[in-house]
Amino acid sequence: MEAKVKTLDIRAGKPVVILNHRDAAENSIFLGDRICINHRGTKGMAIVDTSKEVPRNHVVLFDETKENLCVKEGETVVVESTIKPDSIEHIKKKIDGDSLNYDETLSIVKDAVDFRLTDSELMAYTVAIEMSEFSLEEAKDLTKAMVETGEQIDVENAVDKHCIGGVPGNRTTPLIVSIIAAAGYKMPKTSSRAITSPAGTADTMEVITDVEHDLEDIKKIVEKTNGCFSWGGSLNLAPADDEFIRVRDSLNLDPLEQLLSSVLAKKKAVGAETVLIDIPMGDGTKVDGDKEATELSKYFEQLGQELDMDVFTLISDGSSPIGKGVGPAPEARDVLKILKSNGKEGPEDLKDKSIKMADLILERVNSKMSAENILTSGDAYEKFKEIVKEQGGGIVDPEDVELAKNRETIVAEEGGRVDDICNKYVNKIAKVAGCSKEKKSGLYLHKKKDDPVEKGDNLITIYSESPKRLERAVSIAKQDKVYTFKSLLSK
Amino acid sequence: MEAKVKTLDIRAGKPVVILNHRDAAENSIFLGDRICINHRGTKGMAIVDTSKEVPRNHVVLFDETKENLCVKEGETVVVESTIKPDSIEHIKKKIDGDSLNYDETLSIVKDAVDFRLTDSELMAYTVAIEMSEFSLEEAKDLTKAMVETGEQIDVENAVDKHCIGGVPGNRTTPLIVSIIAAAGYKMPKTSSRAITSPAGTADTMEVITDVEHDLEDIKKIVEKTNGCFSWGGSLNLAPADDEFIRVRDSLNLDPLEQLLSSVLAKKKAVGAETVLIDIPMGDGTKVDGDKEATELSKYFEQLGQELDMDVFTLISDGSSPIGKGVGPAPEARDVLKILKSNGKEGPEDLKDKSIKMADLILERVNSKMSAENILTSGDAYEKFKEIVKEQGGGIVDPEDVELAKNRETIVAEEGGRVDDICNKYVNKIAKVAGCSKEKKSGLYLHKKKDDPVEKGDNLITIYSESPKRLERAVSIAKQDKVYTFKSLLSK
Repeated sequence: MEAKVKTLDIRAGKPVVILNHRDAAENSIFLGDRICINHRGTKGMAIVDTSKEVPRNHVVLFDETKENLCVKEGETVVVESTIKPDSIEHIKKKIDGDSLNYDETLSIVKDAVDFRLTDSELMAYTVAIEMSEFSLEEAKDLTKAMVETGEQIDVENAVDKHCIGGVPGNRTTPLIVSIIAAAGYKMPKTSSRAITSPAGTADTMEVITDVEHDLEDIKKIVEKTNGCFSWGGSLNLAPADDEFIRVRDSLNLDPLEQLLSSVLAKKKAVGAETVLIDIPMGDGTKVDGDKEATELSKYFEQLGQELDMDVFTLISDGSSPIGKGVGPAPEARDVLKILKSNGKEGPEDLKDKSIKMADLILERVNSKMSAENILTSGDAYEKFKEIVKEQGGGIVDPEDVELAKNRETIVAEEGGRVDDICNKYVNKIAKVAGCSKEKKSGLYLHKKKDDPVEKGDNLITIYSESPKRLERAVSIAKQDKVYTFKSLLSK
Repeated sequence: MEAKVKTLDIRAGKPVVILNHRDAAENSIFLGDRICINHRGTKGMAIVDTSKEVPRNHVVLFDETKENLCVKEGETVVVESTIKPDSIEHIKKKIDGDSLNYDETLSIVKDAVDFRLTDSELMAYTVAIEMSEFSLEEAKDLTKAMVETGEQIDVENAVDKHCIGGVPGNRTTPLIVSIIAAAGYKMPKTSSRAITSPAGTADTMEVITDVEHDLEDIKKIVEKTNGCFSWGGSLNLAPADDEFIRVRDSLNLDPLEQLLSSVLAKKKAVGAETVLIDIPMGDGTKVDGDKEATELSKYFEQLGQELDMDVFTLISDGSSPIGKGVGPAPEARDVLKILKSNGKEGPEDLKDKSIKMADLILERVNSKMSAENILTSGDAYEKFKEIVKEQGGGIVDPEDVELAKNRETIVAEEGGRVDDICNKYVNKIAKVAGCSKEKKSGLYLHKKKDDPVEKGDNLITIYSESPKRLERAVSIAKQDKVYTFKSLLSK
């Protein structure tokens, strides 16, 4: 069919065009079909949206398609239906309950990355994985396909770590990278920004230094210093993962198999051969009980084996926040305090957990070195400064980390021993205060689990860039029971 | 968050707004989330699209949202996340393999109709139905929910028929309605336009008379004449069905359970108590073998029972076209020929099948009348003219049906007896010729199954509004083997 072009002053991110519903149906083109648009011989593939109302014999183009085809408002293009990609048949095969082989999985992942599949089709694949038998072999294929359809960094004998998340604070990564790199092992660490939490490692490190690198930068930084603190988001490592996450988020679906493949694909793509997975367990984390944690742990190790990676796990206590700061800047302060004092200052639990994890990694690569020695000797801090310098310099003193000017401290209305600090409320307060958008906002927990508290003691200081948001965060902190206490005599 | 409004000169059909991906993430809003937009106290619900690139702190509104909120380009609105509808949890429950009760199913269907669910979410529900146990009880609930969330016509003791499709021609409906209405039974028939076939009953009847009515019109026409020939598309009968069809079409998914619920919901909504389902079987139809046809038949009858409807089936031969014309106007000619000649002219197979089906319905409602008598006596034609008159008049003589002026006839290159006429190629040629968009285009099959053919005999005449499309259709007809022959001696 011929159609007159309407243009929109907006990019779609995907090659989507909008057709009139009746025009499309009369040409046997349906919502989600892939079509070919031909403008004087220049052709482009696009996915059809017919759910919006367009005048008959018109096609609405978003910016990228308009630019690709060098076409202007009012010009005429030819719209033709094309054959659906083979991957559609493979998705249907999975819905029918059959196993897919590597080539079939690769075709789905490739079409996801090349935007040849619609969100609905990706959702169908995700639901099919969730509802059917998904063998270890298929998980391996999915992981490999995700790695292969993206960029890769080839760092030999690299080690890595990953936390499946859910615990406020818990900013172990900068400490572990500094220790491991100081020990002489390569750790090309890429991290995410916060999605639903108050801060991701990339947000925290961005308070300190530049974290946006390309793959060449990362390779250079790691070659020189053994480590890096980079944002993984723009690197195109296993990019299919981003597509899958985007789609399944709307239902909060998290098929275990896709989660594992996602994590290990990002690690495999940076050449990691030894990977420690932190699985925090407890209220408000992603893993509820022992059984689930053990299963997840076993599955991670098995999938690692299939991928020729040494993947091992730590099931950790995630029932309350790790560290005292929550939010990008408060967490950066915690990390710098520990590093600068060579482990003498800063939150004990964050230091202990980081040392424990670094030791597990060192042990796994048969190193005789002790993470604690590397930290207390000052080597970790030196390494940290070296990496930051290589990333273009930045803040290396906790006192230089600025916190938001509007602040208020909540004090204890009763005494006792801290029994529990609620992850959920801590996250909520930090987000209301402005995290992760405002890097200087967040909160500081003066008391940790098992600490004795007297009436009137400081409990939480909240920081916010906005007096209004501070007020809201404070009112939530006063209303919701962040802290619960037990008798001072119990421990 | 506050956002500046960008407007688009386009309707979305659904309340969709586009947000900047980072803005959204920082406010814990994700693709497919439902948000509330507040413009000076006027609030509206919308679904978020973050897959398109919008400048930060902007929100893109389609026409209906812009109008609902009385907001203009450049003004500021407040965007707030809202709670996901409960139906999301019910979809997840179905994905987990559990059964849903009536209220849960109703909430999904209601949210589908009210556009509170995204296409991906509807797809997830469809895949979950396809992959899980879906009991008769659940199918009943789904059907009832679809009926309840749309309009209904209350015609007492109505009868109806439905064909699950796939056979070219096969335009029995106008004949059956005329016979049944002449016999004194009410048949408020609503039909669809073609989606993937060369013509739907609504397309064919539109050649003859107006088929776009509202529910009040239909009620009046049926009260006066016992029958009607109306397009069901704009009537809002079981509208959830349209949403489900739209979504599952992209994967050509057709979960049996959803298909059955769809069909019976549309019938239930017009008050049908006795329904004959035609299940054509054979190459190119939707049902491949005896077993599948019998299962489908049994399931239809059982679901009917659950819904207090008397549903019964006819498993018919769908291996080749029924009638000689294919396409809106050629089929209208076939129908009018049979009616006007009181059954003496026109394609035998179409007449015989229509009489058989009408007899089955009459028998089912304990009538002693004979469909053949009603046709040959001229009562059917009188009734047809009466209904057409009530619908505003139209064509009632086959000679008045115009066919496209560009036409070409394909002749036999060999002799023999017709062994098979390929449904698939017939459909393809008719669509290339211009069906169903061009009502006068299509084809006419001079020879039917078992007819003797001599070299040089006319086989197919193709009609098209466009000389170019005619040429393409002819070349396909010459290339693809529409007809296959066997020895003249065999029968």
